[in-house]
Amino acid sequence: MKIKAGIVGGAGYTGGEMLRLLVNHDGVEIVFVHSNSNAGNLISAVHTDLLGDTELRFTDELSSAIDVLFLCVGHGDAKKFLAANPIAAGIKIIDLSQDFRLTEAAAQDWVYGLPELNRDRIKTANFIANPGCFATCIQLALLPLAANGLLKSEVHINATTGSTGAGQSLAATSHFSWRNNNLSVYKAFEHQHLNEIGQSLLQLDADFNQQLNFIPQRGDFTRGILAAVYLESDLSAEQAQALYEDYYSGHPFTHVSPKNIDLKQVVNTNKGLVHVEKHGNKLLIISIIDNLLKGASGQAVQNMNLMYGLDERQGLKLKAAAF
Amino acid sequence: MKIKAGIVGGAGYTGGEMLRLLVNHDGVEIVFVHSNSNAGNLISAVHTDLLGDTELRFTDELSSAIDVLFLCVGHGDAKKFLAANPIAAGIKIIDLSQDFRLTEAAAQDWVYGLPELNRDRIKTANFIANPGCFATCIQLALLPLAANGLLKSEVHINATTGSTGAGQSLAATSHFSWRNNNLSVYKAFEHQHLNEIGQSLLQLDADFNQQLNFIPQRGDFTRGILAAVYLESDLSAEQAQALYEDYYSGHPFTHVSPKNIDLKQVVNTNKGLVHVEKHGNKLLIISIIDNLLKGASGQAVQNMNLMYGLDERQGLKLKAAAF
Amino acid sequence: MKIKAGIVGGAGYTGGEMLRLLVNHDGVEIVFVHSNSNAGNLISAVHTDLLGDTELRFTDELSSAIDVLFLCVGHGDAKKFLAANPIAAGIKIIDLSQDFRLTEAAAQDWVYGLPELNRDRIKTANFIANPGCFATCIQLALLPLAANGLLKSEVHINATTGSTGAGQSLAATSHFSWRNNNLSVYKAFEHQHLNEIGQSLLQLDADFNQQLNFIPQRGDFTRGILAAVYLESDLSAEQAQALYEDYYSGHPFTHVSPKNIDLKQVVNTNKGLVHVEKHGNKLLIISIIDNLLKGASGQAVQNMNLMYGLDERQGLKLKAAAF
Amino acid sequence: MKIKAGIVGGAGYTGGEMLRLLVNHDGVEIVFVHSNSNAGNLISAVHTDLLGDTELRFTDELSSAIDVLFLCVGHGDAKKFLAANPIAAGIKIIDLSQDFRLTEAAAQDWVYGLPELNRDRIKTANFIANPGCFATCIQLALLPLAANGLLKSEVHINATTGSTGAGQSLAATSHFSWRNNNLSVYKAFEHQHLNEIGQSLLQLDADFNQQLNFIPQRGDFTRGILAAVYLESDLSAEQAQALYEDYYSGHPFTHVSPKNIDLKQVVNTNKGLVHVEKHGNKLLIISIIDNLLKGASGQAVQNMNLMYGLDERQGLKLKAAAF
Repeated sequence: MKIKAGIVGGAGYTGGEMLRLLVNHDGVEIVFVHSNSNAGNLISAVHTDLLGDTELRFTDELSSAIDVLFLCVGHGDAKKFLAANPIAAGIKIIDLSQDFRLTEAAAQDWVYGLPELNRDRIKTANFIANPGCFATCIQLALLPLAANGLLKSEVHINATTGSTGAGQSLAATSHFSWRNNNLSVYKAFEHQHLNEIGQSLLQLDADFNQQLNFIPQRGDFTRGILAAVYLESDLSAEQAQALYEDYYSGHPFTHVSPKNIDLKQVVNTNKGLVHVEKHGNKLLIISIIDNLLKGASGQAVQNMNLMYGLDERQGLKLKAAAF
Repeated sequence: MKIKAGIVGGAGYTGGEMLRLLVNHDGVEIVFVHSNSNAGNLISAVHTDLLGDTELRFTDELSSAIDVLFLCVGHGDAKKFLAANPIAAGIKIIDLSQDFRLTEAAAQDWVYGLPELNRDRIKTANFIANPGCFATCIQLALLPLAANGLLKSEVHINATTGSTGAGQSLAATSHFSWRNNNLSVYKAFEHQHLNEIGQSLLQLDADFNQQLNFIPQRGDFTRGILAAVYLESDLSAEQAQALYEDYYSGHPFTHVSPKNIDLKQVVNTNKGLVHVEKHGNKLLIISIIDNLLKGASGQAVQNMNLMYGLDERQGLKLKAAAF
Repeated sequence: MKIKAGIVGGAGYTGGEMLRLLVNHDGVEIVFVHSNSNAGNLISAVHTDLLGDTELRFTDELSSAIDVLFLCVGHGDAKKFLAANPIAAGIKIIDLSQDFRLTEAAAQDWVYGLPELNRDRIKTANFIANPGCFATCIQLALLPLAANGLLKSEVHINATTGSTGAGQSLAATSHFSWRNNNLSVYKAFEHQHLNEIGQSLLQLDADFNQQLNFIPQRGDFTRGILAAVYLESDLSAEQAQALYEDYYSGHPFTHVSPKNIDLKQVVNTNKGLVHVEKHGNKLLIISIIDNLLKGASGQAVQNMNLMYGLDERQGLKLKAAAF
Repeated sequence: MKIKAGIVGGAGYTGGEMLRLLVNHDGVEIVFVHSNSNAGNLISAVHTDLLGDTELRFTDELSSAIDVLFLCVGHGDAKKFLAANPIAAGIKIIDLSQDFRLTEAAAQDWVYGLPELNRDRIKTANFIANPGCFATCIQLALLPLAANGLLKSEVHINATTGSTGAGQSLAATSHFSWRNNNLSVYKAFEHQHLNEIGQSLLQLDADFNQQLNFIPQRGDFTRGILAAVYLESDLSAEQAQALYEDYYSGHPFTHVSPKNIDLKQVVNTNKGLVHVEKHGNKLLIISIIDNLLKGASGQAVQNMNLMYGLDERQGLKLKAAAF
């Protein structure tokens, strides 16, 4: 008996990545892929890499004959969609936008879908607010410390994202002639993901009260986020390594690398890799994810697997691009 | 009952790609991964994207408790390896080097492992000579014409390969500072893959006697080959489209795109896509593959699947990188 | 006494490149830079690499107190601009669009501004139609043969251009997420530059009557065009080398490399490099230029230098990017 | 009367960049380019972008008929070279290695050649220790604060360098297949340039005693460094802007951008651009340079210009690559 899934916003980046995953997921049947702008078109006419993999077409009609609905729409549009289209009771929802991530903004029954933080709650949730990409990468660097009450100084974060993080809309900063071989800072100290990161840290450590200094950067690559995070710490390198290994020991996608890491180790996978180093009084944590997978659609499938009691890795044993 | 596989040359690019595929292949058990230089090391210490996916280590010992042996060594080294290490009868061999591709060079029982040409022979073969990457891409553009005796003029081929096509050895032309944003021609008219291409065309059309003009180019990307091939032809666009669709109708990985194609449609997949256009008296065929997958390790797994009666796509339903 | 120059369309790619050249050209004074959309803005606010190099601002007013006018507008817009804004007699015009390149389309007094073809006519011209980028690169490969009546077979051309060749407008094919690590063919056999190429070859060889088969490709780099061109020829390699060296001996920017070439040798310079090889009965010519310099604004300055009797290289001794 | 220059180590990256600059420098005559490995070869055979620009050849002989000697050799090799080859009195030396940058290591008459720090001393110096690339970029971010005694908290620095920063030697981390679309951290908190940065800050502020936390990153581009630097500060945004503008007002290559900046604004120029922002109690300074120009050979020429009383910008009015 397969899980019946619907996708809203199937023509965008996260919608496409969802389709790339679900067409090969043995436990899922895609019932519909909603797109107003592409209704009637073959999915492979938009996501052309799916040529030969699916004959599905976009539709502008919704069906309630589904078990789970993935919302792959823009920030703000998920709330609007749900207001305009009441979803039948019993249908679970996984929203990839930021609309329901903050407790104050969300009705109480939305669960923040970061398995490394909330696995048990996810298993029984009906509504999942899928975390942001930067937020996922940075939380993987900080959760083990927060869980042990060890965030006792300001935190310094520099993270660089690939171009797909900004979606498929055309913009000056997504023009190849500009972005190729380029690098830039944006939204310094003010990125919206700081809110969900802070909320998670408080969940683990009610006394958390440190500044998170976050410099986001636009990289000249397509996929992935690398975050370099550091803070003051009394832990030795060995203690830190053990702390992180312990925290992630039950999590199939997140691993602690004893050696230094580079971004492409996780590109095209749902993995998160972290590496810790101690330098003087500073603990450095390097964290990497693929922003479209562990940072978006892959994590959404991981959440679905947890919600339906599947193997957490089903449909997510992805061959790394590596190059 | 899983197929027991051994890999020789597991530390190189095609060996790594073989491992990325086989660790997730439900029908295969990896018995050993041979590497003289890395014996004893974790595979994930060399192919660092496999961290968390396998605890296997390289070994410098061979075992005969296998069903199939993949040779992922350099050109010339496969012959040397087999001369120095007689393989027990009953073990099937899939060689990714060029050592046994040409009939004159190979003992008679090697089969050229291009499923779109030799599927039935592959199914019963014991020894497979896995095709070259350029050779695969260009043959996918030409096989339907050859099969119908329609190669009646000189053929003009320009094909650009990614950097992984040259392997992992360090060279001036693989230095990032040189190759980034660069393009160059090499081995014009004289690339060694012309031999195996010509052999295949003669297999399909014993009267084939046309010049293959081939300009290989080094591209500034990592994965993939795009070949633009044209020749004089009396076929209309519709006839050509039908001819290609007919030829590839039974082949699960090779598809004829009615729309123009771009390289990334196949990157990180085992697919081959071809697109045909007619311009005046010229028939243009654009053909794309991922050089490490359909052009090397993916095709090797496809051949193994055929040899053991598995679903041809098993272990090869790969999520495209797309970006 | 400096040449007084006006620029129309200064906010686009070729306009920006013109400014990058002219701010450092000792013999030129920039009188105005016209842009309707950016009137009043600092030039360095649009072409941000010019910060610290100029305090000029865009204007929406034209002045006739100039010696030469550069038209850096889109195809079709040059004709419209000149129809709407009659230019005072005595002002020379250099148009970078395609509007006046073809003799049939242009009034008789426009000269096609390829110095390697028309240097003497350029010196006395009042109106210059600056060649297209592909057209320049391909003509540099073919002019010596045409001049000697040696284009006696079909010509096969594959040329790959950088993203700046498509201008700064936002398009799916200029999105970084799509173009990075990608390659594609477009306008096969039908690129509009074939017309001006054919016109030039006929100018040198009134009997020229061969098919020019041209496959343009979109590369994943920003600057430059590499063309691989071949045809049947009786010339030996030595004869071809001598023929090309002889033809380009008086041209300061175009050189015949005895060794194979790669695109980055000319990036950020006004040079054209060609390399010839003989393979069987085929003569291969590889030709490279920077599409924004020798293929556009650099050649426009070169033409201006010739028109005003300056050293042809003045303001064009550019440091290659090299990397 | 031109300055007669000799170059030692002319076959490497900084040597090549020196040649690209000096062949077009009106005030310089290149007397010799020393290279043991390439003696006798055309310079344009190694630095192939110089084809057509110079007929010079490498030599393995040194001449004392020069005014200035540029040492473009590896770290440690400058000291060895000078020990083995005593330089005649009266010849000025500009060393691009790190051998003489630290006061304790250098004889007293070496001047640290950062014009924004030591312009007057450079003008009368005989021996210049040219700064490191990271060191230059980071100092441009910090000098105005140090000069005003405003470095009163820990400093947080994340800086990403292009591949040319690592020189032309072949390494796993310079392989295109690895580096393309990749990002990684290295030498965190321990980069050797911290020493020269600290020395300069102490020169301006004898009381400076803060920790410099520096995370260097390897970017997937060829040229340039972007540093994001922040610290606690009482300055308002306007005060900081004014402070930086004031400090750099007399420096022709370093500018304070009122708008956010991106790396390519300085690529292929000798410029440094800085941009300051205030966020809460943090002052953010973004600083960009081209590592081979302002970070190496361009700054060396700038120093030479100062030493010989030339216009500081002579030979350095370079067209930005921009794309």
